[in-house]
Amino acid sequence: MKRKEYEKELEPLQVELNQVARWLEHTGKRLVVLFEGRDTAGKGGAINAIAQTLNPRQTHIAALAKPSEREQGQWYFQRYVPHLPAAGEITLFDRSWYNRAGVEKVMGYATPEQVKAFLRQVPVFEKMLVDDGILLLKYWLAVDQEQQEERFAERAKDPLKRWKLSPIDVKAREKYAEYGKARDAMFKATHRPEAPWTVVDFNDQKRGRLTLIRHLLDQLPDHDVPRSRMSLPPLKSRPGKERYTGPVKPIPMAY
Amino acid sequence: MKRKEYEKELEPLQVELNQVARWLEHTGKRLVVLFEGRDTAGKGGAINAIAQTLNPRQTHIAALAKPSEREQGQWYFQRYVPHLPAAGEITLFDRSWYNRAGVEKVMGYATPEQVKAFLRQVPVFEKMLVDDGILLLKYWLAVDQEQQEERFAERAKDPLKRWKLSPIDVKAREKYAEYGKARDAMFKATHRPEAPWTVVDFNDQKRGRLTLIRHLLDQLPDHDVPRSRMSLPPLKSRPGKERYTGPVKPIPMAY
Amino acid sequence: MKRKEYEKELEPLQVELNQVARWLEHTGKRLVVLFEGRDTAGKGGAINAIAQTLNPRQTHIAALAKPSEREQGQWYFQRYVPHLPAAGEITLFDRSWYNRAGVEKVMGYATPEQVKAFLRQVPVFEKMLVDDGILLLKYWLAVDQEQQEERFAERAKDPLKRWKLSPIDVKAREKYAEYGKARDAMFKATHRPEAPWTVVDFNDQKRGRLTLIRHLLDQLPDHDVPRSRMSLPPLKSRPGKERYTGPVKPIPMAY
Amino acid sequence: MKRKEYEKELEPLQVELNQVARWLEHTGKRLVVLFEGRDTAGKGGAINAIAQTLNPRQTHIAALAKPSEREQGQWYFQRYVPHLPAAGEITLFDRSWYNRAGVEKVMGYATPEQVKAFLRQVPVFEKMLVDDGILLLKYWLAVDQEQQEERFAERAKDPLKRWKLSPIDVKAREKYAEYGKARDAMFKATHRPEAPWTVVDFNDQKRGRLTLIRHLLDQLPDHDVPRSRMSLPPLKSRPGKERYTGPVKPIPMAY
Repeated sequence: MKRKEYEKELEPLQVELNQVARWLEHTGKRLVVLFEGRDTAGKGGAINAIAQTLNPRQTHIAALAKPSEREQGQWYFQRYVPHLPAAGEITLFDRSWYNRAGVEKVMGYATPEQVKAFLRQVPVFEKMLVDDGILLLKYWLAVDQEQQEERFAERAKDPLKRWKLSPIDVKAREKYAEYGKARDAMFKATHRPEAPWTVVDFNDQKRGRLTLIRHLLDQLPDHDVPRSRMSLPPLKSRPGKERYTGPVKPIPMAY
Repeated sequence: MKRKEYEKELEPLQVELNQVARWLEHTGKRLVVLFEGRDTAGKGGAINAIAQTLNPRQTHIAALAKPSEREQGQWYFQRYVPHLPAAGEITLFDRSWYNRAGVEKVMGYATPEQVKAFLRQVPVFEKMLVDDGILLLKYWLAVDQEQQEERFAERAKDPLKRWKLSPIDVKAREKYAEYGKARDAMFKATHRPEAPWTVVDFNDQKRGRLTLIRHLLDQLPDHDVPRSRMSLPPLKSRPGKERYTGPVKPIPMAY
Repeated sequence: MKRKEYEKELEPLQVELNQVARWLEHTGKRLVVLFEGRDTAGKGGAINAIAQTLNPRQTHIAALAKPSEREQGQWYFQRYVPHLPAAGEITLFDRSWYNRAGVEKVMGYATPEQVKAFLRQVPVFEKMLVDDGILLLKYWLAVDQEQQEERFAERAKDPLKRWKLSPIDVKAREKYAEYGKARDAMFKATHRPEAPWTVVDFNDQKRGRLTLIRHLLDQLPDHDVPRSRMSLPPLKSRPGKERYTGPVKPIPMAY
Repeated sequence: MKRKEYEKELEPLQVELNQVARWLEHTGKRLVVLFEGRDTAGKGGAINAIAQTLNPRQTHIAALAKPSEREQGQWYFQRYVPHLPAAGEITLFDRSWYNRAGVEKVMGYATPEQVKAFLRQVPVFEKMLVDDGILLLKYWLAVDQEQQEERFAERAKDPLKRWKLSPIDVKAREKYAEYGKARDAMFKATHRPEAPWTVVDFNDQKRGRLTLIRHLLDQLPDHDVPRSRMSLPPLKSRPGKERYTGPVKPIPMAY
């Protein structure tokens, strides 16, 4: 998909996302969206497409660092809970508690017992949030390995994307199939009526983003909120200019 | 400035920002950048241009909500301190502690005594951070009122920007000159050798962003860090595909 | 019960509590104890008797202030979760999430729907904690109104206890029976095999404390941990004294 | 000093501490008290004597665990700042930022440069708090080594105090003189008119506590606040009893 076309299609979706944001504020409802998927699937890009035109004081992106030693000894969900939204807010999880059933399982950072216990707890935890009124959406961004390899190669080459490529990613490349099995086990245990998974094909990231956002908007109840008109009466005096009485002046433009 | 040209100029700057990020990680140094300026000046856009290609687990954007009642009874800087970067991290403050000398002063949310006390404390507070080794940069993004009015008008019209326009902004429009005076008082009290202000003309936001980032990069010590090569050996098996053994399948593409 | 006798009985219990603390540290297990009961029942005193001889870096007392406005719009359990213990730790809750089914219900701070939803969620929430391996004990400290009245009168009179008496307490005095009904509804909904309630008669606080601690100790698995001997070899030089080379000297003893 | 006599002397001091608490609440002022001193000096006991009769929702004891790895890469004061009191509150620091100039220096956990930088920053940091209106008191609890040795021996013997004796303490016993030098350097750098040190002889802990509290009270401005009378009108019905309609009944008293 060409960028021009993508942007043309994205705009009305972003307008509707803004309506959703206003509706959440108006109703005090809370929205949680989880983004999961293999490395390079396009989680960060999808999140940015959503957050880009929203108020950062209302829409929070939760991309947790790895747990501290103390956190490792706590209830597994404990460090995620503080990021749940307050009334009127949105939290977008860039990876989430599902780490335990994905990377932690495949790379051996969690024991089979821990993974099993986790998969048993997830539906209970999520049902509790949903019962509490939180709108919860869970997306799996799907990418085939051929496409993934291209993106890894680009990350290795592009100095703007180098940081996205970690030694762990390189090691994980040979575990594509294991990740698939882990995902299936995860779906089996946690795809519930009150908190279903939605898989979106992200082999073409632009089409994937548009499809995901369209789907997201369709899951939410009617979110039209009449917006208050904001009028800008004419200024009472001539428009001012930035003038400086002290020694601090603008630096010369470099471009 | 045309978007194409802007993007062409921006890219090498973003490459260098990535070098800075690697250098910070390598050295454990910490970077704080404050963005101040009138409404519509372009703080959010400048921050996004910087953060866009960096690791969100390393680069944090601090856009604080208004203080809670309890926070209002605390040391003024108390709620900002937890956002200061740890070793190797960057914090970009979208507005900052300078709120007290700007909007709080002009709109009467802080008493003259509070503002005075604040201006006395700032240089001490900032010197302490700088003495501790934090790299601190403070930018004022300058915008003339004519330009500001155009942007307000656009915010009122564009459904993607409507949330940026608050009733307070509308009220504040008649106080352009007062804000200028407040800014001058602020510069006078807080433009210090160890923590100087830099003013960048943001009447053209694209040129403003490029100039600001160029300046920012020039303030930092030599930040070249040899980057470890990451090689991607050929896969040992044929590239896999996302296949699903359970009932959850990709939804149809909407685009 | 006389103080002398009380202290004699308390000491061996405190020794055993110290064994428990060592056992928790050794095994990485976590202990949560909730203290609920009417005003004046003696929750604070019981907690102090337990915490008194334990390491405050291991044993935390959670006595939450009333929720902020933002917290009121969050998942009800959200503000309690950060206080759950990490590996090897103890949290003693001085009142707890049960506030919603007690004071909030009786005084009308929560709607009947909120109370109902809460009572439905509690068993799920607590089961999740217990399944995660947290040792959870819940105590109701029982006090008859005659005794409560005496204690209220003492609080009104004793300048060391005045702060314990709030206008809400005075108002709540006429609702003794309603509190009883609320407690029964709470027991009915939340007395579960994995998280049972234990009622202890606190009409005599000293006997109540001893009984509660004895019961608590009996609920925990065998907690004997061989303790490492710590030997104190003789000092290599003559014992030193606090001497001051500068102008700061001890103040005169006032007693 | 005998316990009976101690308690008789302590009570009026605790009454006055309660007045102080009411005065802080009334005026919105904030109080910080630091307790420093060698191992076994009696910091915890002094803090408990103060906090014992105060409202734990107003009076916080800050006994920080050792810093996490992430915290070690932050501004040294960063992890202490969140514990500073809000309006009307008290924070009692059981050890404090002075760790760096004491145990960290003597045991070699901080480099000489870090200690030097710390001693340079402290007066600036503390002055900022005092300028902000925080009432700051700093106590050094003095204990001679002979007394310290007795207390170490007791800790090794008494199962209720065993946790207070760590291998580091045992190692630190031979460094009594070094600690004295470190303390002198600390006093020299940080005993300032706006934040002076007060040394109290704690060779007799009971007399030490009384002297410290008397001194503390004398430092505070006139703190008499007329207290609102709280009347307890007679109950409108016969006093109720705890009765249980469900299966949960009080357990038998064990004492």
